[in-house]
Amino acid sequence: MKRSRIKSLYADKPVGNEVIVKGWVRSLRQSKAFSFVVLNDGSSQQDLQIVIDASLENYDEVIKCLTGSSLAIKGKLVESQGKQPVEVQASSVEILGQSPQNYPLQKKGTSMEFLREIAHLRPRTNTFGAVFRVRHELAQATHKFFSERGFYYIHTPIITAMDAEGAGELFRVSTLDAIKPPLDKQGKVIWEKDYFGKEAFLCVTGQLEAEAYACSMGSVYTFGPTFRSENSNTTRHLAEFWMIEPEVAFADLDEVADLGADYIQYMIEHALKYCPEEIEFFNRFIEKGLKDRLEKVVQSKFTKITYTEAVDILKTCGKKFDHPVEWGLDLQTEHERFLTDEKFQGPVIVTDYPKEIKAFYMKQNSDGKTVRAMDILVPGVGEIIGGSQREEDLDKLEARMTELGLDPSLYSWYLDLRRYGTVPHSGFGLGFERAVMYITGMQNIRDVIPFSRTPKSIEF
Amino acid sequence: MKRSRIKSLYADKPVGNEVIVKGWVRSLRQSKAFSFVVLNDGSSQQDLQIVIDASLENYDEVIKCLTGSSLAIKGKLVESQGKQPVEVQASSVEILGQSPQNYPLQKKGTSMEFLREIAHLRPRTNTFGAVFRVRHELAQATHKFFSERGFYYIHTPIITAMDAEGAGELFRVSTLDAIKPPLDKQGKVIWEKDYFGKEAFLCVTGQLEAEAYACSMGSVYTFGPTFRSENSNTTRHLAEFWMIEPEVAFADLDEVADLGADYIQYMIEHALKYCPEEIEFFNRFIEKGLKDRLEKVVQSKFTKITYTEAVDILKTCGKKFDHPVEWGLDLQTEHERFLTDEKFQGPVIVTDYPKEIKAFYMKQNSDGKTVRAMDILVPGVGEIIGGSQREEDLDKLEARMTELGLDPSLYSWYLDLRRYGTVPHSGFGLGFERAVMYITGMQNIRDVIPFSRTPKSIEF
Repeated sequence: MKRSRIKSLYADKPVGNEVIVKGWVRSLRQSKAFSFVVLNDGSSQQDLQIVIDASLENYDEVIKCLTGSSLAIKGKLVESQGKQPVEVQASSVEILGQSPQNYPLQKKGTSMEFLREIAHLRPRTNTFGAVFRVRHELAQATHKFFSERGFYYIHTPIITAMDAEGAGELFRVSTLDAIKPPLDKQGKVIWEKDYFGKEAFLCVTGQLEAEAYACSMGSVYTFGPTFRSENSNTTRHLAEFWMIEPEVAFADLDEVADLGADYIQYMIEHALKYCPEEIEFFNRFIEKGLKDRLEKVVQSKFTKITYTEAVDILKTCGKKFDHPVEWGLDLQTEHERFLTDEKFQGPVIVTDYPKEIKAFYMKQNSDGKTVRAMDILVPGVGEIIGGSQREEDLDKLEARMTELGLDPSLYSWYLDLRRYGTVPHSGFGLGFERAVMYITGMQNIRDVIPFSRTPKSIEF
Repeated sequence: MKRSRIKSLYADKPVGNEVIVKGWVRSLRQSKAFSFVVLNDGSSQQDLQIVIDASLENYDEVIKCLTGSSLAIKGKLVESQGKQPVEVQASSVEILGQSPQNYPLQKKGTSMEFLREIAHLRPRTNTFGAVFRVRHELAQATHKFFSERGFYYIHTPIITAMDAEGAGELFRVSTLDAIKPPLDKQGKVIWEKDYFGKEAFLCVTGQLEAEAYACSMGSVYTFGPTFRSENSNTTRHLAEFWMIEPEVAFADLDEVADLGADYIQYMIEHALKYCPEEIEFFNRFIEKGLKDRLEKVVQSKFTKITYTEAVDILKTCGKKFDHPVEWGLDLQTEHERFLTDEKFQGPVIVTDYPKEIKAFYMKQNSDGKTVRAMDILVPGVGEIIGGSQREEDLDKLEARMTELGLDPSLYSWYLDLRRYGTVPHSGFGLGFERAVMYITGMQNIRDVIPFSRTPKSIEF
């Protein structure tokens, strides 16, 4: 007989059937004639109640099991007289693994900080079980969304020799001796002797490579890890995070802005449909009003304004901001939050940013001042998507690179995409962890990835 | 009007309708009264024929377009008199991007080696378009397969402080100065000053972290990049490759061996169903008999033998091998291929390997000599899956680690999984690129990943 997952027992309710369940003890309540075990197997937000009669052969041993112990239970699924719809009357209980008294997850409430220190055990809690089931469903929704629309999933390289964003926040990857790397006469590292024959880094984006695939397969997307070595300890930054980057040949900025809005709505609808208990849990314990907020976004039209309009709104709204508002400066989270939470009370797409604050590859507008970039801002979080139409004109792209001090010869293959049958194309990036935060209401980005990577933190 | 993908035009055949198609010129054949353009947009193995009448306004300009140029075409979809079922009679043609005469992808045949040097353009060819559409479908199949069976997708860390396999084939990740890292008085690097406060590496597996999640969420899988810095230039090794690693609580080795066999069959069936033209293409041009081979595996029962039986078979089969066959030595590809291709003529699962050649975390058999490991071997390729039941007994695991010179205190969190409610559990790893090779018939692993990473090779 195969074990049943608790999730499927609640879904199918095969009352009267013999079942086998296996999981971990959340709590054990003892009484004279029988005991109750609350069991969780990670498949569901809900625990399963097991009734153990004192007549059970190894009853004395079983009732000594502490929280965290693992059990295999055979028994009959019956309707419950308690709050839960069904429970199991155990006919046999096998103790798989005991858990000692110092098991860190006792019934008492525990802080998020403490749980971060036991990241290998925290998915056994209600909160983190819910987070990672929702994360799973959002990943499935991502693949479904793009696949249904004819996009091809591609794996762009993790190790790269290029600084694709030019921001310099790179981790070096090397097999050279860390103490005595081979040096030339000028005292410079001889990278030719390293594994890849060049200085190599972890990618900050897969965009440039995705562009190559869009310019051959039409519509593609990446879903992979990306890295930033900036030394920032905020609740919104990770050194290692997962990003989804669609890239669409023949699409202009408006088209991918719509795609981004559709994608966000699709993810939310998917989570509401496939994780109703988890969303209910977050709504109750993590962020009051979450469900309402999510349902509203699904029905919203996304307001579209230009950066210039946004600056005008922020300057004339009469509100005091910590960071200055000035045409040419980037929008800060407080500005973005004002636009979404107060001014428009819903998601906002801001387009056509000053070219000086955006990357070299963005399509230049004819005003000479702005580029066809866009950010999608959502209430409660701010920026969740950043994208642009890519400059498809070889001459303009080369000129902009030279202006910025980039050496076009280092980007030769990338420029080939404009040399040989260039096409208009656009794309965006969505930080997956930001999306998980947004949809669960979790407040710290470290709490929506299994094992987070931040400065000085690489346990597990 | 939205552009139509060629794939959907062939699927729906909306004959008589006005359509817009956009893509790249594969060839242009000129005659007096009209010209034919063969267009491909990457969505399909099939090209679309465009008929351009000489009466078209910019006819003279259009017919000068060379292979590789990008066009946007408006016209009527009609039944074709040629081999293809439909074609487009152009009413207007916009030239999006010209392609010069030195465009590297001319109609003449090109070698795989040459195409590797233009990895940013090779997906525009028939072969690589087919490879990456199949790769896409196999990734979708992977998520569907595990999701349907109640597995949760988790993202395990890419940067890690652990050498989880103990093989030492690691890439170091660092932000320290490459020339003058901070050294202590003994001349050792002060890793405390590095970004993560410890020496950090790229992961070789996500298994240990996946075990933590299996021991809380039940059944989980990873699908992410993994890294090996071994200096090997073979057709089967990459420095950066993608791996799928399911990990199942409460499962023994037989259960995950069956899971692995089901997964392989599921992927093949999915590819046959969703990529019939691509498989046909590979069958014709890459590996004669491929389709037959794949269909056979779907119907096969996987033969299960122990390592000890395998050694007996290899020793007594009368065949000469280049590598010695001796109990205690690992099986080589030639041995695996003999078992699958000649002896059993189908997939083979080999179990219970000598513990000396396997990793520390594998469950020890009572014979004291072997561990509950398994490899799944498939015809034409050899090993495609490696897995094991994990040692769930804390004392045995610690003893084995000490025996191997590993310091259990470095694995404290991993050992916690046995300390607190330990459960039997098993898992395996499948190298995604090997699976793509197996299902496409491609012979070099560099040709089934968009941009390959091998020694001295990090272009793009």
